[in-house]
Amino acid sequence: MSTVKLWSDEEVAADSRVRAVFDDIRSTRKTEFVNNFWRALANQPELLERTWASIKKVMVEPGALDPLTKELIYIAVSTINSCSYCIHSHTASARVKGLTDGQYAELVAVVGMAAETNALSNALQIPVDPEFMV
Amino acid sequence: MSTVKLWSDEEVAADSRVRAVFDDIRSTRKTEFVNNFWRALANQPELLERTWASIKKVMVEPGALDPLTKELIYIAVSTINSCSYCIHSHTASARVKGLTDGQYAELVAVVGMAAETNALSNALQIPVDPEFMV
Amino acid sequence: MSTVKLWSDEEVAADSRVRAVFDDIRSTRKTEFVNNFWRALANQPELLERTWASIKKVMVEPGALDPLTKELIYIAVSTINSCSYCIHSHTASARVKGLTDGQYAELVAVVGMAAETNALSNALQIPVDPEFMV
Amino acid sequence: MSTVKLWSDEEVAADSRVRAVFDDIRSTRKTEFVNNFWRALANQPELLERTWASIKKVMVEPGALDPLTKELIYIAVSTINSCSYCIHSHTASARVKGLTDGQYAELVAVVGMAAETNALSNALQIPVDPEFMV
Amino acid sequence: MSTVKLWSDEEVAADSRVRAVFDDIRSTRKTEFVNNFWRALANQPELLERTWASIKKVMVEPGALDPLTKELIYIAVSTINSCSYCIHSHTASARVKGLTDGQYAELVAVVGMAAETNALSNALQIPVDPEFMV
Amino acid sequence: MSTVKLWSDEEVAADSRVRAVFDDIRSTRKTEFVNNFWRALANQPELLERTWASIKKVMVEPGALDPLTKELIYIAVSTINSCSYCIHSHTASARVKGLTDGQYAELVAVVGMAAETNALSNALQIPVDPEFMV
Repeated sequence: MSTVKLWSDEEVAADSRVRAVFDDIRSTRKTEFVNNFWRALANQPELLERTWASIKKVMVEPGALDPLTKELIYIAVSTINSCSYCIHSHTASARVKGLTDGQYAELVAVVGMAAETNALSNALQIPVDPEFMV
Repeated sequence: MSTVKLWSDEEVAADSRVRAVFDDIRSTRKTEFVNNFWRALANQPELLERTWASIKKVMVEPGALDPLTKELIYIAVSTINSCSYCIHSHTASARVKGLTDGQYAELVAVVGMAAETNALSNALQIPVDPEFMV
Repeated sequence: MSTVKLWSDEEVAADSRVRAVFDDIRSTRKTEFVNNFWRALANQPELLERTWASIKKVMVEPGALDPLTKELIYIAVSTINSCSYCIHSHTASARVKGLTDGQYAELVAVVGMAAETNALSNALQIPVDPEFMV
Repeated sequence: MSTVKLWSDEEVAADSRVRAVFDDIRSTRKTEFVNNFWRALANQPELLERTWASIKKVMVEPGALDPLTKELIYIAVSTINSCSYCIHSHTASARVKGLTDGQYAELVAVVGMAAETNALSNALQIPVDPEFMV
Repeated sequence: MSTVKLWSDEEVAADSRVRAVFDDIRSTRKTEFVNNFWRALANQPELLERTWASIKKVMVEPGALDPLTKELIYIAVSTINSCSYCIHSHTASARVKGLTDGQYAELVAVVGMAAETNALSNALQIPVDPEFMV
Repeated sequence: MSTVKLWSDEEVAADSRVRAVFDDIRSTRKTEFVNNFWRALANQPELLERTWASIKKVMVEPGALDPLTKELIYIAVSTINSCSYCIHSHTASARVKGLTDGQYAELVAVVGMAAETNALSNALQIPVDPEFMV
């Protein structure tokens, strides 16, 4: 259960500042569905606006990485941070953006492999090779 | 400083089991350079063999994700695990595989964004939307 | 579900060592309610006594930081450690100590911001400025 | 060593977009010193602008929490994320904002205490008390 | 809820590659019960085979550390990574291997203590003593 | 560099409260050497006394787990928390307590394995088997 109220569509509709963000989320994503993350942030409009603006900039605007690759990175970070909400929401989001079962399987394998070698490197306190220092 | 000896090329050459792995690393990567990670693992040949076999399977063999995408995921995991060695080695590795400055800038932005929303979601203990449960 | 038994009030009452700690928790906090954390620690009386003594020293005794500020720090740590129990219990505790919605909103924003810049700094492996070394 | 170039004052001066942010940092903080974090972000102007705008909003603008309290929260998050750069920079920043030795000692004690009880709660998988669910 | 299908015994039986691993898990562990971890990995046979082979090598084969000690280490890692599934499964596994209540109580106390002093050391950025550098 | 002063032996000798703890560390460990961790904690005597008392209770007093096993658990926790100081100090400490190269190699392998399966379990959000809920 969340530590704050999750705003219903009625509550959103009654607050012009929050409604403006939700309208933009809906039109940007081309769906009526707005997930709980935004309904929780609705309690603090400044954070809501700023976070959505950043998400649009980082995850939605075209750039050097394609949208699916960005979702894979997002899932990797969320997994290591043990953020159950974020793992679920971004895995779902990646699937909407075309993630195949084969790609997902490889993502999971890479995340596991990286976590293992991170632990080995930290345990052994391996010094960075001069060749990696550019 | 590492907690274990980093094997020199001479020490590697004198141990047939370790040398076999180093030879394969060199021929697979088409370079004489073998980084400290493997020189530290050389102290435990079973782990050395198993880890290299896994890395080849996960990171080198062709699959559904291209090699550069896998490096981006690796950097993301290493960043959140605060593994300085792994961040340096995989950022260097990604550059060898063609990472552009523009792609790197976006990777960094996505990792930062994900870390922020992970913290927000965990702080607020947001429940997973039923729509994300498939 | 916990990995150990949560002690009921009856079980606590029947064990003089555990009961002494629970009595002190109740009189210190001025409430009959004792939360599950202590009911789980009751299985190991030495840890129960030591942890409660530390909590009293660190969180209850008057000092240079006021009690609410300490709870904010506690929530921040618990969020990054992804400790769901601790996030819930210390957010509730902060509210009892007077946390306003405005303060909570700022806490959440600061935690998110810090998590983002931590990730950026770690990804880029930024060296500490000599000016920060005192 | 950082994975990217740290911009010198000369390089900053030659780029109008980056210079504008650095000018604002200097005038906001009332000091000529700009730390390496911003010199690293200078490589990606969009992230530089967005991060500085967020930092100003979250950490500089007057709000419900005083500036020193926000720095304490920042240090707590950075400690758990094992971000050496951030621990150094925000501890220095807190001192500039008036942190006393006594306050710092209590901050450190609270962070340690929280990390311990987080580990205990996670190890024992203690269920959240219904009383904490509002 | 998992992000992937958990394979039933019927589905396992119908896939010879997956069935071979499950048969080996059952005969190695001398029980018909196969836990959800393997039923989730069944979706990616290469990872299933590789992970089980590694687990057998690391956790089952006789070595310098006894099986129970290895489980204690596993629980410690899982606790800090906040992996609820792993904490539950390896605590159960340790009990099967003879973990007593007294040993478990000490494990929990050590993990808590280590988490606390880790946080203190990171907060204070204590330099490693030359005496520890061998 | 640490954020606080590391106390020299002369400074310790001049402060009766701190000296008492250092004397007990020296006599308990049967060595004149006192590592930097305690020299940093000397700035806050209450924390110094409390932490040493807990370390004695948890790590030194005879119990159900032998001293070397406790050090292995400590190293595991420190590795996942990416606490460089603690990894170095407790690996050194384990060696003093008799850690063999073979045991260390297995510890490292178990920590790596656990980190990998933690990541897999979190990525796939695998539900805990009812059989593990006692």
